Amino acid sequence: MPELRKDPITGRWVIISTDRAKRPTDFLRQSVVIQGVGMCPFCPGNESKTPPEIRAYGRSGGGLNSGGWSVRVVPNKFPALGIEGSLDREGEGLFDRMNGVGAHEVIVETPNHKNTLAMLSEKSVEEVLGAYRDRMLDLKKDTRFRYLLLFKNHGEAAGASLEHTHSQLIALPIVPKRVQEELENSRKYFQQKERCIFCDMIRQEIETGSRVILENDAFIALAPYAPRFPFETWILPRAHSSAYENMPAEQYGSLAGLLREFLRRLDAVLAFPAYNYVIHTSPIGEENNEHYHWHLEMMPKLTKVAGFEWGTGFYINPTPPEESARFLRDAVV
Amino acid sequence: MPELRKDPITGRWVIISTDRAKRPTDFLRQSVVIQGVGMCPFCPGNESKTPPEIRAYGRSGGGLNSGGWSVRVVPNKFPALGIEGSLDREGEGLFDRMNGVGAHEVIVETPNHKNTLAMLSEKSVEEVLGAYRDRMLDLKKDTRFRYLLLFKNHGEAAGASLEHTHSQLIALPIVPKRVQEELENSRKYFQQKERCIFCDMIRQEIETGSRVILENDAFIALAPYAPRFPFETWILPRAHSSAYENMPAEQYGSLAGLLREFLRRLDAVLAFPAYNYVIHTSPIGEENNEHYHWHLEMMPKLTKVAGFEWGTGFYINPTPPEESARFLRDAVV
Repeated sequence: MPELRKDPITGRWVIISTDRAKRPTDFLRQSVVIQGVGMCPFCPGNESKTPPEIRAYGRSGGGLNSGGWSVRVVPNKFPALGIEGSLDREGEGLFDRMNGVGAHEVIVETPNHKNTLAMLSEKSVEEVLGAYRDRMLDLKKDTRFRYLLLFKNHGEAAGASLEHTHSQLIALPIVPKRVQEELENSRKYFQQKERCIFCDMIRQEIETGSRVILENDAFIALAPYAPRFPFETWILPRAHSSAYENMPAEQYGSLAGLLREFLRRLDAVLAFPAYNYVIHTSPIGEENNEHYHWHLEMMPKLTKVAGFEWGTGFYINPTPPEESARFLRDAVV
Repeated sequence: MPELRKDPITGRWVIISTDRAKRPTDFLRQSVVIQGVGMCPFCPGNESKTPPEIRAYGRSGGGLNSGGWSVRVVPNKFPALGIEGSLDREGEGLFDRMNGVGAHEVIVETPNHKNTLAMLSEKSVEEVLGAYRDRMLDLKKDTRFRYLLLFKNHGEAAGASLEHTHSQLIALPIVPKRVQEELENSRKYFQQKERCIFCDMIRQEIETGSRVILENDAFIALAPYAPRFPFETWILPRAHSSAYENMPAEQYGSLAGLLREFLRRLDAVLAFPAYNYVIHTSPIGEENNEHYHWHLEMMPKLTKVAGFEWGTGFYINPTPPEESARFLRDAVV
């Protein structure tokens, strides 16, 4: 008998197929393979092919837009939003619109075209995570923005248009709907219980154990109770922390260790899958709160999403989270 | 400058790229082509390859599960939900679960493997739409169910696992999240204005004109103001109607005419794209209301959806709806 499960944070029900659960071998179809052909604007030597750089890490000599960097941040050449102008909010009868003002940056995670994020050293992953933080802290100074959205598309199946490993950061004048829902539900929970719902969930998951994938001193990776996708995983700080960009400096290293270990296990279990991840943090101006707990949502791209899902926000997941957690927990890297 | 637009019914903001708008030719990549190879369980003569039929139309002689039908309804061989048993709602600490009780049926739209829905006669499309209604009315008698979800996946890119044209109907013990949101927002609007928000939107769209694709006596097809996807289209009854399955009998013919004309234009403009559609109707037990307006949401599958969209419910649409409406309005079939 399949199961219907409800995610307490979003209020979303999902169908978990328990009978004919799909195992990792049922998904092994399109491994991400780096081709490395053609001109890559993210490779050293091609710095002039991107818009002028915003920031670079690891460069000892040389000027802006020269080589010798380890992490490089540039504006997206084809930004989803424009950086200039004012919002000009206005109505059109029933409808609301504003100018698409925002920032859209690319974080190139390594100079080496052949590397994936999973292949980097822990120190290098920490530098990438630090670049996320630095850019978020800088973009927050712009009062037009309400939300900072960090995401990564890995592999063509996950929507990556360039294969050289990179992440993206978008600054938005609105809070995205899914984050808004999480904020509202966690606020309601806090009003009732005076506890953070994510903290409660982490406590319960550690006690239950079956959905925990990895833990270290400061972070935990777990398969959520009602995941939308096979092998969906959330990475959260164990102690309450409402904003990614405001963590104590030493925690980025701890996160780097756990994220890297997780990615290597994912590659081992699912043979180098395409994936997306996204960081959910508190909105700008509400960074310090007791109800919202920042986290990273990781979604391997293993299945096609059909009309049923699109049209309803209701997902059918063929792999129970207890199964995916077990595979990832037992993985040998 | 891109534009941010808010859908008043779901409260969702989308980014509409206005600068480098994608035209139909930018999407012409994967036309749906019917291969017709291998055994098809939906073809006449193979009736024994499906679970025993629930209903068939157009058969003059012959018994159950024989040939000679024009539309045939069978249980899904691999149902997402199980038909037997009770819900057994229960909590697990923070979490909620129930048994995955529900129905999952397949409506085979024609005996001819080579036909798509767009290629059928208006009379045949009407018979398909009538089959949707008949099955919905029958499944409603089961008091365990709260919602009936009709959807169609056309083409492999849209998640169709069998190419013989068919639709699916799922009966659920819960109301899906996206529908729930639409219900809540339209209820709020009604409380404030004592008018249906969909009726108001239709009035405004007819006046504006630029997003209207097609109209007939009883239905309208329009590109919504804040669409998630290029060429997303909603088909709605012009007069208030809260439940698909309760329309006056003559309206299904009118809907068939408009849907068929729309699909033929879509094929002409986008060269036989994969698509999904889904019907949003009122929940079981709330069929007669003044605030919710049933509609069909059509989503051609033209772009990859990446981490940004998954993680946030926030979409970047490269084609303004005024453009997609114009292409479909001017299409010559």
